[in-house]
Amino acid sequence: MIKKVLIANRGEIAVRIIRACREMGIETVAVYSEADRDALHTQLADEAVCIGPAPSSQSYLSMENIISATIVTGADAIHPGFGFLSENSRFAELCEQCNITFIGPPANVIASLGNKQAAKNTMANAGVPIIPGGKNPIYTVEEGQKEAETIGYPVIIKAALGGGGKGMRVADTPADFEESFRTAQKETQMAFGDSTMYVEHFVRHPRHIEFQIMADKFGNVIHLGERDCSIQRNHQKMIEESPCEVITEELRERMGGAAVKAAKAAGYENAGTIEFLLDKDGRFYFMEMNTRIQVEHPVTEWVTGVDLVKEQIRIASGLPLSYRQEDIHLNGHAIECRINAENPSKGFRPSPGTITDMYFPGGKGIRIDSAVYSGYTIPPYYDSMIAKVIVWAKNRTEAIRKMQSALGEVIIEGIDTNVDYQYEILENPDFLSGNTDVEFIERMEAN
Amino acid sequence: MIKKVLIANRGEIAVRIIRACREMGIETVAVYSEADRDALHTQLADEAVCIGPAPSSQSYLSMENIISATIVTGADAIHPGFGFLSENSRFAELCEQCNITFIGPPANVIASLGNKQAAKNTMANAGVPIIPGGKNPIYTVEEGQKEAETIGYPVIIKAALGGGGKGMRVADTPADFEESFRTAQKETQMAFGDSTMYVEHFVRHPRHIEFQIMADKFGNVIHLGERDCSIQRNHQKMIEESPCEVITEELRERMGGAAVKAAKAAGYENAGTIEFLLDKDGRFYFMEMNTRIQVEHPVTEWVTGVDLVKEQIRIASGLPLSYRQEDIHLNGHAIECRINAENPSKGFRPSPGTITDMYFPGGKGIRIDSAVYSGYTIPPYYDSMIAKVIVWAKNRTEAIRKMQSALGEVIIEGIDTNVDYQYEILENPDFLSGNTDVEFIERMEAN
Repeated sequence: MIKKVLIANRGEIAVRIIRACREMGIETVAVYSEADRDALHTQLADEAVCIGPAPSSQSYLSMENIISATIVTGADAIHPGFGFLSENSRFAELCEQCNITFIGPPANVIASLGNKQAAKNTMANAGVPIIPGGKNPIYTVEEGQKEAETIGYPVIIKAALGGGGKGMRVADTPADFEESFRTAQKETQMAFGDSTMYVEHFVRHPRHIEFQIMADKFGNVIHLGERDCSIQRNHQKMIEESPCEVITEELRERMGGAAVKAAKAAGYENAGTIEFLLDKDGRFYFMEMNTRIQVEHPVTEWVTGVDLVKEQIRIASGLPLSYRQEDIHLNGHAIECRINAENPSKGFRPSPGTITDMYFPGGKGIRIDSAVYSGYTIPPYYDSMIAKVIVWAKNRTEAIRKMQSALGEVIIEGIDTNVDYQYEILENPDFLSGNTDVEFIERMEAN
Repeated sequence: MIKKVLIANRGEIAVRIIRACREMGIETVAVYSEADRDALHTQLADEAVCIGPAPSSQSYLSMENIISATIVTGADAIHPGFGFLSENSRFAELCEQCNITFIGPPANVIASLGNKQAAKNTMANAGVPIIPGGKNPIYTVEEGQKEAETIGYPVIIKAALGGGGKGMRVADTPADFEESFRTAQKETQMAFGDSTMYVEHFVRHPRHIEFQIMADKFGNVIHLGERDCSIQRNHQKMIEESPCEVITEELRERMGGAAVKAAKAAGYENAGTIEFLLDKDGRFYFMEMNTRIQVEHPVTEWVTGVDLVKEQIRIASGLPLSYRQEDIHLNGHAIECRINAENPSKGFRPSPGTITDMYFPGGKGIRIDSAVYSGYTIPPYYDSMIAKVIVWAKNRTEAIRKMQSALGEVIIEGIDTNVDYQYEILENPDFLSGNTDVEFIERMEAN
């Protein structure tokens, strides 16, 4: 069993991991940058080692400094949290070479899933649904129409060298196709000096649905249900829920089955997340696999009762899964709101500074994961997320009301936050009725 | 449905009730004494009415002031919380007369259960086990021995006019009886000028086990499992848990069945608690019924998922129970520690004053019910309980570790608290092994 864990991270996830270790009787080592001397994770761990100056590149991203700290403190494992080095296969490999347990999947699995196209191919071969098309370069309308017929309308026509939405058009029917293709190709030629196109099935108004999986070293893989993470702004998740209201037991079983298949195909170990797009007709497509614990893991923890971080540590210690698939039931409804130090009325500009007064509510069905406290100065160098408010109730309606009530009690003074913006989402009729997809925020902001 | 609730209480339970109402879309009125102008419940409610000077008798116990505040603010219901007027049948009656919904059982039910001997008789008649004996006045050894044979050894011999342990002896066998009786009777004669004795079955090293019940206006009654509240100091509960480790599914069904029978026999409505003594051999005896929400209700909430305060309000509104008995399952293990502003090294003397710095942990499986905040001044007039730390984990061992970890993070500066004392209990080998009964604290302090 792992005896001493170095947490190669900061903020609330570092605190989360320290707590899990302490509850398991495992010693903890925090690492901190010069800007994080007063951080909560630095104070809570059994030991704390300064690993360099504030910029992440010189501290939280410095593999050498972190490995050195691990060796010096005699820690036998590293938990990478999320972000920073958590999905860096080179770092996982370095750990393996230094005989340090990396709490996550093996380096080669991280590497192969990090290559998004290769990962899709692996999944397609394993029978996990991926978005049809997009593999053959297309040069003419006729080729494109043939491809579109094969993969099914609507389709999206994309520049092979594309980016930023340039050279991109959607065609809903064969009749639309010719004009859309010609316009897209012309734009592509002008923008990139090339006219190679791809045609891919277009998933309209999809939800971002991800499945939590957990795999041990003995080939056992389970899924822990889904999270609906459709409430995103510029691809940054803001609110996450579990379960997803539109997923039936039957669909959950199919998607969960696909997630388990995906993990097995990847030779996966430890906690991971399979991201899918889900369309209005219940069709779903593998997008990518995240090889780490996620920010939004608490919603899964609350509806399943499973402590994912403890389970990660158990698995990394070589123990089998504590749960079988049939032990996992989604009970009630959980929602998470990410509280960021930022100013929504000024383009969500980060708002570091000193928290002069702070109050978070407690009570039934409220979980606060945070690493800030009254008097704490948020440094300007890192991610602006300072807390997660997670609620649980027996159904979605009650959970939303609880979150409204909870956010109404939050006091954070001295800095700007997105609390009022989150509150606005929670009062939006489409959000309330569950009529959401990944374009929800865009539509809300347009109104 | 109730539209506006006046909360006739203060502290964390007032905050708890305000949150439940807000989540249900019900308006709230706080009442506060002059000493509670800055209290959290005063701040959180939609409206707040001052009901008098600091001493409870002139504010929180003033039926007239509270009824007036209810009428003035147009509230249609009163939630009494616990303590204060919560078990005062006269107050419940006054509410009925003023056409105000009292969120609790009818006045006559409170009155009849408030008479402890009458309540025992009701229960005995309904077939709920009560402690055998204690009914017939005994004057001689022979009468006493006959009674003891009938009710079963060990027995306790008590003075009819007794109190303070005077004139009280335990006899384990018929051989012991004669000497014990004579000594007890002599002491009784000297202490009270009377020699009337009672002989009752003696429950050695009992646990305090209580069953939460919930009853609607349609005669439906369910139980929500038990709480083990054996960790008491001078009859003040300190730590409560659910479930109780030594209660098997079979015993739970029998005790729960008896609790439901007790509630039905009393014509009960709303949330209530049946207190039992449980001996080492699994025999249990009805002690009394508490006709209100309890301090320790959160442990039941966490293992059952039921929001007891919301359910109270629904029932008082005339709605049927939201759950059937078969919907109730005890999941995992919950523990509550009561955090008091008091000094254990000075005889648990209350320690009111200003909280200069405060930090409570959050994270998975942590619930904090509190009404204090950094900068808040605890007035000297009321109960010293300032917060409840409640934890949940999948089993008792993990829950204890979580509580240890949580208490280790608590910071409360400026006043004295019992946090270290609680921590000591959590490290006691007998507590850890579950070898506890109502004399646990006494034994711990003797060591």
